[in-house]
Amino acid sequence: MKVLTFKRGGRVEVGVLKNDGLEVVPVNYLGCTAHNMNEFLDLMTPEKEKKLDKNKELMRGIPLREVKLISPIPVPKQDLICLGINYYAHAEEAAKFHGEAFGGERPVPIFFSKRVNLAVADEEMIDGHWDIVDGLDYEVELGVIIGKDTKNVSVADAFQHVFGYTIINDFSARNLQTAHKQWYFGKSLDDFTAIGPWIVTKNEFANPPALGIRCYVNDELRQDGDTSLMITGIAEVISMLSQGMTLKAGTIIAMGTPAGVGMGFDPPKFLQKGDVVRCEIDGIGKITNFIK
Amino acid sequence: MKVLTFKRGGRVEVGVLKNDGLEVVPVNYLGCTAHNMNEFLDLMTPEKEKKLDKNKELMRGIPLREVKLISPIPVPKQDLICLGINYYAHAEEAAKFHGEAFGGERPVPIFFSKRVNLAVADEEMIDGHWDIVDGLDYEVELGVIIGKDTKNVSVADAFQHVFGYTIINDFSARNLQTAHKQWYFGKSLDDFTAIGPWIVTKNEFANPPALGIRCYVNDELRQDGDTSLMITGIAEVISMLSQGMTLKAGTIIAMGTPAGVGMGFDPPKFLQKGDVVRCEIDGIGKITNFIK
Repeated sequence: MKVLTFKRGGRVEVGVLKNDGLEVVPVNYLGCTAHNMNEFLDLMTPEKEKKLDKNKELMRGIPLREVKLISPIPVPKQDLICLGINYYAHAEEAAKFHGEAFGGERPVPIFFSKRVNLAVADEEMIDGHWDIVDGLDYEVELGVIIGKDTKNVSVADAFQHVFGYTIINDFSARNLQTAHKQWYFGKSLDDFTAIGPWIVTKNEFANPPALGIRCYVNDELRQDGDTSLMITGIAEVISMLSQGMTLKAGTIIAMGTPAGVGMGFDPPKFLQKGDVVRCEIDGIGKITNFIK
Repeated sequence: MKVLTFKRGGRVEVGVLKNDGLEVVPVNYLGCTAHNMNEFLDLMTPEKEKKLDKNKELMRGIPLREVKLISPIPVPKQDLICLGINYYAHAEEAAKFHGEAFGGERPVPIFFSKRVNLAVADEEMIDGHWDIVDGLDYEVELGVIIGKDTKNVSVADAFQHVFGYTIINDFSARNLQTAHKQWYFGKSLDDFTAIGPWIVTKNEFANPPALGIRCYVNDELRQDGDTSLMITGIAEVISMLSQGMTLKAGTIIAMGTPAGVGMGFDPPKFLQKGDVVRCEIDGIGKITNFIK
């Protein structure tokens, strides 16, 4: 099932797609009182999810073209949890950019966070913050949405806590990321997180999902990976974090990016004003943004 | 004015202190409809603040001993923004602990973030997470509470965006902080952020506030600094961040810790089960926590 957030007559609503994605059924039509995706995630259980999925077929939907899609979680409850350097080939290119040695070791995962005041949606603009940014980069990532409060979960049980998946473009200012040592500020500028176009529930995929993941800049294929190639997997990450941190329903984890980011090229191919960036993950969809 | 959050009959309320801190007046008695501190900060303006301060004297308060204080912002809107290594003597001890050289340079500020599911209040317990934590450390810090949405503000105007100050104990697991390279996870375990006992509005201090800041472990003075000795000051931090990130009302910035943390001693003096940690900042108060 595909779950999304949309605007109709200025009002924000949560809906589910039907009829090959041509129509959206507001969850309010289906007896769900959620006003936004965070409330929806708090209310959902696997049973309610199944019922919703079934009942949506009985309802008349609104043509998707008549509503405006916004990011499925426009205002995350908390900062995004992100993995750094979580695909081998990207580990290599990042080490090279920073002039470090990379011996192919399997490192302890790097966790950092990204503040998102307002997530950017599909087909929306990204402010390049050109007065302070040098080296604006793209990073396509699989976003994992936690469905229920998660504490001390085992690797074996971790997927029970996943609600679904989305696409994240983790825009990064390489100059700020490097200068401030910790990556937070260079990752957290306004507009630096695109999330969308919707959330696909986990039952549509294997555990863990093995999905082609790609990023194009102006139709040039830059990143071309597969989510099965992560160094630390989804279940391991959820289990590890949950040993000490309760992951609340609505938590978003960005699983790291494959090779091919701008800093990986020699010379680097950073984003410029007017560029079009398209991120795709098989089985989820695509999210396109314009650099202004 | 001192603003706090308290529980009475199971209900959470926002209040202001009067009568030398012996009584609390719920802000609802004063015509303010806020249900929690985040709503209160969204509603406040300097004019409303002045009126509240004046009107509280006309109202009968509740004896402070009859209510239970909780953290003034128990559930922050977003992760805390923290400064790393923002006092010279602490920069030296941290470099020594990590086996790095420190030449007394004035570095670009280090920003990282700290997830806080539920802030720990004065006189509450801290879970040491002993199964995964080695090197539990304390860090007393001045907490700055942003009062209104802040974008592109100059250093000269930055203090107009501050609502007030509080005390933060930034508990840290040194083993996790080091192993994961980025500091986020080692700083974000459940219970690792104590905030309190209340917020003191900025009009009670100079801009910037020059306040004695201390931390005691079992009554042994460990940290003894002054907030005037920060490397990057409050106005500079707010201005710098706001060039790219909108700081929303309710944003909490932890301004870094002075020298004397556990890892600064040789051998290190980390926290143990049963320890009592007391953080004090002159003009604000103190916050005491028990390590379990």
